[in-house]
Amino acid sequence: MFKVRINRAESESNQETLLQILQKQGIYVPASCGGKGSCGRCKIKVLEGNVTSNSSFGISEAEKAEGFVLACQSFPQSDVLIELPAQLITVSERIALAKAELIENIFKSQPSLFSPLVGKLHLKVEPQEALADFENLKIAAHRSLSISRKLASMLPDFLRQNQWNITLALSEDEIIDFPSKKLYGIAIDIGTTTVAMALIDLEKGKILDVATCYNSQINYGDDVITRIVFSEENPYGLNVLRKCIVDDINALINIVSVRRREGKIYCVVVSGNTTMCHLFWGINPEYIRQEPYAPVLSHYPVWRASEAKLLLDDQIPVYTVPSVAGYVGGDIVAGVLASGLYKSEELSLFIDIGTNGEIVIGNRDFLVTASTSAGPCFEGSGISCGMRATDGAVESFKYHRETDSFEIKVIGNVKPQGICGSGMIDIISELFSNGVIDQKGKLLPDRSKHIDFSQLSSDDSRFIITSDCYITQSDIDNIIRAKAAIYAGISTLLEEMGIKEKELKKVYIAGGFGEFLDVKKAIKIGMLPNLAGERFIFLGNTSLTGAVLCLLSKELWKETNEIAQKMTYIDLSRSKKFMDEYVSALFLPHTDWERFK
Amino acid sequence: MFKVRINRAESESNQETLLQILQKQGIYVPASCGGKGSCGRCKIKVLEGNVTSNSSFGISEAEKAEGFVLACQSFPQSDVLIELPAQLITVSERIALAKAELIENIFKSQPSLFSPLVGKLHLKVEPQEALADFENLKIAAHRSLSISRKLASMLPDFLRQNQWNITLALSEDEIIDFPSKKLYGIAIDIGTTTVAMALIDLEKGKILDVATCYNSQINYGDDVITRIVFSEENPYGLNVLRKCIVDDINALINIVSVRRREGKIYCVVVSGNTTMCHLFWGINPEYIRQEPYAPVLSHYPVWRASEAKLLLDDQIPVYTVPSVAGYVGGDIVAGVLASGLYKSEELSLFIDIGTNGEIVIGNRDFLVTASTSAGPCFEGSGISCGMRATDGAVESFKYHRETDSFEIKVIGNVKPQGICGSGMIDIISELFSNGVIDQKGKLLPDRSKHIDFSQLSSDDSRFIITSDCYITQSDIDNIIRAKAAIYAGISTLLEEMGIKEKELKKVYIAGGFGEFLDVKKAIKIGMLPNLAGERFIFLGNTSLTGAVLCLLSKELWKETNEIAQKMTYIDLSRSKKFMDEYVSALFLPHTDWERFK
Repeated sequence: MFKVRINRAESESNQETLLQILQKQGIYVPASCGGKGSCGRCKIKVLEGNVTSNSSFGISEAEKAEGFVLACQSFPQSDVLIELPAQLITVSERIALAKAELIENIFKSQPSLFSPLVGKLHLKVEPQEALADFENLKIAAHRSLSISRKLASMLPDFLRQNQWNITLALSEDEIIDFPSKKLYGIAIDIGTTTVAMALIDLEKGKILDVATCYNSQINYGDDVITRIVFSEENPYGLNVLRKCIVDDINALINIVSVRRREGKIYCVVVSGNTTMCHLFWGINPEYIRQEPYAPVLSHYPVWRASEAKLLLDDQIPVYTVPSVAGYVGGDIVAGVLASGLYKSEELSLFIDIGTNGEIVIGNRDFLVTASTSAGPCFEGSGISCGMRATDGAVESFKYHRETDSFEIKVIGNVKPQGICGSGMIDIISELFSNGVIDQKGKLLPDRSKHIDFSQLSSDDSRFIITSDCYITQSDIDNIIRAKAAIYAGISTLLEEMGIKEKELKKVYIAGGFGEFLDVKKAIKIGMLPNLAGERFIFLGNTSLTGAVLCLLSKELWKETNEIAQKMTYIDLSRSKKFMDEYVSALFLPHTDWERFK
Repeated sequence: MFKVRINRAESESNQETLLQILQKQGIYVPASCGGKGSCGRCKIKVLEGNVTSNSSFGISEAEKAEGFVLACQSFPQSDVLIELPAQLITVSERIALAKAELIENIFKSQPSLFSPLVGKLHLKVEPQEALADFENLKIAAHRSLSISRKLASMLPDFLRQNQWNITLALSEDEIIDFPSKKLYGIAIDIGTTTVAMALIDLEKGKILDVATCYNSQINYGDDVITRIVFSEENPYGLNVLRKCIVDDINALINIVSVRRREGKIYCVVVSGNTTMCHLFWGINPEYIRQEPYAPVLSHYPVWRASEAKLLLDDQIPVYTVPSVAGYVGGDIVAGVLASGLYKSEELSLFIDIGTNGEIVIGNRDFLVTASTSAGPCFEGSGISCGMRATDGAVESFKYHRETDSFEIKVIGNVKPQGICGSGMIDIISELFSNGVIDQKGKLLPDRSKHIDFSQLSSDDSRFIITSDCYITQSDIDNIIRAKAAIYAGISTLLEEMGIKEKELKKVYIAGGFGEFLDVKKAIKIGMLPNLAGERFIFLGNTSLTGAVLCLLSKELWKETNEIAQKMTYIDLSRSKKFMDEYVSALFLPHTDWERFK
């Protein structure tokens, strides 16, 4: 549950709905009808204060009595306190809350950074005798400009009809439109599992809306390797996967555009892992899977919306956040940008726990990076009852040894349907602390009545949570392999650089876990280095945040390219040290348990 | 008649036909079948030496006895002397002869200028561990490169299939293809009346072929003004005119490509007057006709073949020679480039006598330019029996006062069908010198039996050459107005700059007249300044020559842009001085006859 206080004074007029006021605060309540009162999704509870509502579509009399209203149809009449049920906000949308702050802070502390990749330029042209219209335009702009044939063909009438006043939408030197609407941009994080989009007001530097969906490539494989294999083995595999992600993005564009008709999208920044970016652009990712794991592109030219097959004006520039190597992509580069660790004196660690686990160690002097194949288990994939951190997911778990009983917390307070990443870590940590599993992660039959050993294979032995929700021995093994890969990656990289864990001043955690990872428990199972809790900082979806930052700042886009250049990739797949570390980390918490004392 | 000597040693192999050997010398004999021996157009006469022929399609026994052979089917067995009947070569193709020389001389004297706008780069890529293919490519090229999505998608397989050897076609930093054929380019002169194209070998810097056709916009008006009016008055007028010229150019591309399949066109340079360039790009020329006569564009961005609707690969760059003003276009800028006057210390005059008469005066320190509406009469338009300088045109005229008789020379030695520009100047000059017309250009009834005064209107009084071919009083008035406009333009510009005629060291003459203008006679009627004959230099189609030079040299392309910037346009239409000069020049040779003594 989230509680939000709204001061009526913040409402610019009586015309603003609660939905609009919340959006201004960076809180994105889904309203699939676009705020027309016809979908009933934006139901919220008014705890204090008075509101008037135009419509209560889909709200029962009982709910009305409790204070439920439709955010899109209600207007505050006093200061109000609102409760947003967690199920109203998807994980990525919760992450967006954190992000908006981070972005705001960056531009507040350094206002000169604000210089969107596409900007507006208002000109009053003073036509000089017999000089070409376009030359007059360049003189008025005091800069070199380029123009498309189509816009050039519109220029003469446009200038004369508007008494030589003109507004340009500029991408570098190129005029991409004579805009009559507000300039919007979109930032896209193409995750292997989830696609997230933020609609940005390029003039004000604000997030207007976010939207997320599954990456429908999931139908062709859970992780990047199976997707690459699919694209190799099927004659049109690459086209199929490209169409999946392009269709997903176009659907999201449609959603965010329908909601915000007062602007037009003029710039796109895409961030994703190397394979996702290749698939998005329809570029064969085959060689990423073969030694020496070389991608086709790491620094992408700025191509156009037409080339990307996005349903935007053809000429709209599409920027792709550069990658470092086949397994350290633009999402990580964007993450380093968002974390700011590349500018800091302090030695820090950045981990993005998604389908892969990517690690960066460094500061303003150096950056080293590696990728571990953690696998998609923390995103809910490949685990018997795994699911994403959304309604119905067990997100925390507390075991009581004395009574052999446990408590769970389920997102949305509904019947548990499965277990999300943070739930998995809680379960393993609690069962290990209380001796229900041993140091190797094996379920101990005599320790709990909740263990079912009746399955044919010992891998299928399970700890039962509810009849539909359990964790098997092979799930536990899987999770331990994942945490071992992450920890071994961190410790190998530290050892390579001759740095001790304790020297890490900050640990930035990005990815689907968001703020819902219990750091103490993650340390208890030996997944994260044993550091004081205050050194850990949760950043949410830094791939998306980084993409937004690029969209809003030419300077930060430039820095992003410099970060990618500066990052040194260490290939763990061929490192003996990593293999040793990995094997040692296959224990709970670790063979060298001293480290986790 | 043209005679050409062919040394057998120049033939690289016995496999080369006379057609091919002539082409190498810059002589373009039309062969519409592409040299397959099936059209019979390339019939030439062997005067000395032996040739063997595979076929004599379309050649009569009598012709065979005289030595006629098909150039495309014949091989020299010794040194040979060949006669090319004039009708085999169209006007523009005759102009091309001069041009090839001019171009060759420029690059011979300054080899460093040779750097085509699109060039080949062969690379042996040494792939570095895990580095992206495109990054490896940039390292091998030692330069920054950009690539399209489509080519990027082909890159990985292409590199690996060719053992990391690759050839790039480069336009600036942009890879436009991985070419497997020779790199060709095309230069296009879009004249108001005629379109001329040259196919260029970009690797060797040679003209391979030329092709010309009428500008089919002629159906919608003879001069730029009527075309602009057509585009304004008809709802799809601009599209109609654009389609005309684009179709013409595509037809020419087809002709030159069919003949030369061993290469592929990778670059286009277009040169034409301001209105023609606007129409080619589909840009509204309306404001060129309205005070202050401003075009939309003078310096065009480099757009693509797809934007131009040319039937070439989409991404091929299309350069447009920049213009100076609404009535001094890229054709004149290209002409100044081709003439070299902008680099010379000597004060010179450049005149392009096409549908308009454009004038440039200057040297390496300054360039001033103006345009006079000479009208299309010298191109054969607007004159009762006017025609272009092609088969059947009276091109010279000699009058004998004693016998009241005359001799004519007809292009192609056929029955006269009309009078071309040089013929008109000859006729007026001869009739004036011999007192058949007076100083105002009026036909004097009692001076020749060839004058027919029986028409209803005195404007229709005519000097009869043959029953089908004559010149009327109104034609003569028309021609005098045209020559007056040209001369007045020159003298006004000279006066503006405080320069005396005698100070002009060179007079470059470009345009349809080619080498066929009798300078002495043009001076006699007061069209050209009264200077010694050796100061006059005929350059042919300098718009096309300039476009070829740009295609072959980045440096000259840059200089072309500098020339356009440097040229100061003087608007004669609002000059009182010009009106005075014009009125004075409406006499033969001039009111101030001292100037032409």
